[in-house]
Amino acid sequence: MSETVTIALDAMSGDLGASTAVEAAFSATRRFDDLRIILVGDEAVLAPLLESRQSDVITTQHASEVVTMDDPLAQALRGKRDSSMRVAVDQVRNGTAAACVSCGNTGALMAIARFVLKTIAGVDRPAIITAIPNIHGHVQMLDLGANVDCTAEHLYQFAVMGSALAAVVDNTESPRVGLLNIGSEDIKGNELVKEAGKLLEESSLDYIGYVEGDQIYMGDVDVVVADGFVGNVSLKTSEGVAKLVKSYLKQEFTRSPLSKVMGLAASPVLKRLAKRIDPDRYNGASLLGLRGIVIKSHGSAGVLALENAVKIARLEAKKGLISRIESAIEAQLTKSGDQ
Amino acid sequence: MSETVTIALDAMSGDLGASTAVEAAFSATRRFDDLRIILVGDEAVLAPLLESRQSDVITTQHASEVVTMDDPLAQALRGKRDSSMRVAVDQVRNGTAAACVSCGNTGALMAIARFVLKTIAGVDRPAIITAIPNIHGHVQMLDLGANVDCTAEHLYQFAVMGSALAAVVDNTESPRVGLLNIGSEDIKGNELVKEAGKLLEESSLDYIGYVEGDQIYMGDVDVVVADGFVGNVSLKTSEGVAKLVKSYLKQEFTRSPLSKVMGLAASPVLKRLAKRIDPDRYNGASLLGLRGIVIKSHGSAGVLALENAVKIARLEAKKGLISRIESAIEAQLTKSGDQ
Repeated sequence: MSETVTIALDAMSGDLGASTAVEAAFSATRRFDDLRIILVGDEAVLAPLLESRQSDVITTQHASEVVTMDDPLAQALRGKRDSSMRVAVDQVRNGTAAACVSCGNTGALMAIARFVLKTIAGVDRPAIITAIPNIHGHVQMLDLGANVDCTAEHLYQFAVMGSALAAVVDNTESPRVGLLNIGSEDIKGNELVKEAGKLLEESSLDYIGYVEGDQIYMGDVDVVVADGFVGNVSLKTSEGVAKLVKSYLKQEFTRSPLSKVMGLAASPVLKRLAKRIDPDRYNGASLLGLRGIVIKSHGSAGVLALENAVKIARLEAKKGLISRIESAIEAQLTKSGDQ
Repeated sequence: MSETVTIALDAMSGDLGASTAVEAAFSATRRFDDLRIILVGDEAVLAPLLESRQSDVITTQHASEVVTMDDPLAQALRGKRDSSMRVAVDQVRNGTAAACVSCGNTGALMAIARFVLKTIAGVDRPAIITAIPNIHGHVQMLDLGANVDCTAEHLYQFAVMGSALAAVVDNTESPRVGLLNIGSEDIKGNELVKEAGKLLEESSLDYIGYVEGDQIYMGDVDVVVADGFVGNVSLKTSEGVAKLVKSYLKQEFTRSPLSKVMGLAASPVLKRLAKRIDPDRYNGASLLGLRGIVIKSHGSAGVLALENAVKIARLEAKKGLISRIESAIEAQLTKSGDQ
């Protein structure tokens, strides 16, 4: 059997409660022989959920507090030092776990992870990256909201980190990196993007130039880089369109008795379509640029979605993502030092 | 019969050629009794297309040149003073037409329109606005790419103009205006948006606060304001998602003989869905903030799409959009002068 990978799973921060985390832990460990999970949370809550179930591969770690969605950052960071989120990240820092997963507040998770794990040398700002389905399979996109006001140098670092992640997670030897912009010609775009484009042209990355919003979904690109404001707007816009199409489909297939029959006739196909664009299949965003693997899951993640986030954490840990990013950043720094 | 409205239609700049413009002119004038159209373009091209057809409501205006998609701005503006685009805009300036419509290069059209028509007093930068389908019908969104680097004051002016347009075009007494941002809490967002939010809170507009990307499609908002970079990325992202869903639908309904039968069975519903999200129905973006009505149509617009752009031009002209915007801008300026 291959070497085991231990993931610390914050069991308390999800909207659906600790039982969902427990189910996801059982399901994921059944799926992967090499996986060990530490459920982090209140023992009083976890014990009854685990009571009747024996497992050699699932353990628990007590944490007395929970970071809520409304907690101000300062409260999450300094007021709740025994939160499940904090203790899960602590497991990564002290080496008990190779990665952690949390469904909690993104801002709090980023703040705690930065404080506890610190950033990789040469990285000014950690970023958030996730896989997004596209015509060719999927594309990795960052930053999705951690950094609203960026410099060109930040975008450049995002590109280096995103490329390293895609190489590792997607098995792409030389990921094609595109900068999100509003036109493919050099004259278009804002000053920030133009400047970042110049840095990327001089880099050793496979930089393919500017990509427009529609190319996230239709283009030949592996990594799309944007500042956190633009990346987040783009992601949320996509969610809006998907919801609208879903709502239209439902309306059209229930408009009349005949439409309903047609919908019923087509339902196997429609279900396959729904599965294909199911956001659960892509649940799990990586906080990139930290000295440890931290995965943010949707707050409302169910068992399948949470299992997917754990799967990503496992893969990144197995593939040694952190040292890959460290090497990539160092290579770029050395290169620019040479010039 | 109500007062007539004359639209100058640049017949040469569309990808599908002058015949499409001619067909759209005939179709639109059949639809609206009060509509007159001036087809602007090369007489040698237009005459054969009109030869066999008599019309009291369609006339032509000769223009010897055409602005291409590749023409640099300087060439479009100063090198081709007899382009169909320029002559169409000229018709608005000299009062021959109440509005103009062009399928040409957006950058060239904006530059020519600004040069010929000038901006409304109090407007620093014209913006591009269009209706986007959403769960409640549609929402007006601006700026879609005219201004990539904006100040808070610019966003504020976009909001005033967008609100005036929605009031006129959508018959909304007090349009709800939202600022596109990445979180609904005050603490989120970039500096630009926060500052613009403060200006809007002090205005007499029905400002509802921040909206996130998904609320463009699902939210209770009539006008969404963003800088041109963010607005364009959001619009193009939406197009990408729509294309992806379309491609998935096609794939799923042709996967097997049985899927094909199901697709056939459901085809009336799928066609209605396709019609509902058909971008042609929303073709026609307004260049807002100029002393005249200028509508930009998609370059690849067919007859139906171009007719829709003409319909928007007619409506804005009939409703006196320019004076409504002038009043709105003046009211806001006076208000801030009072403070």
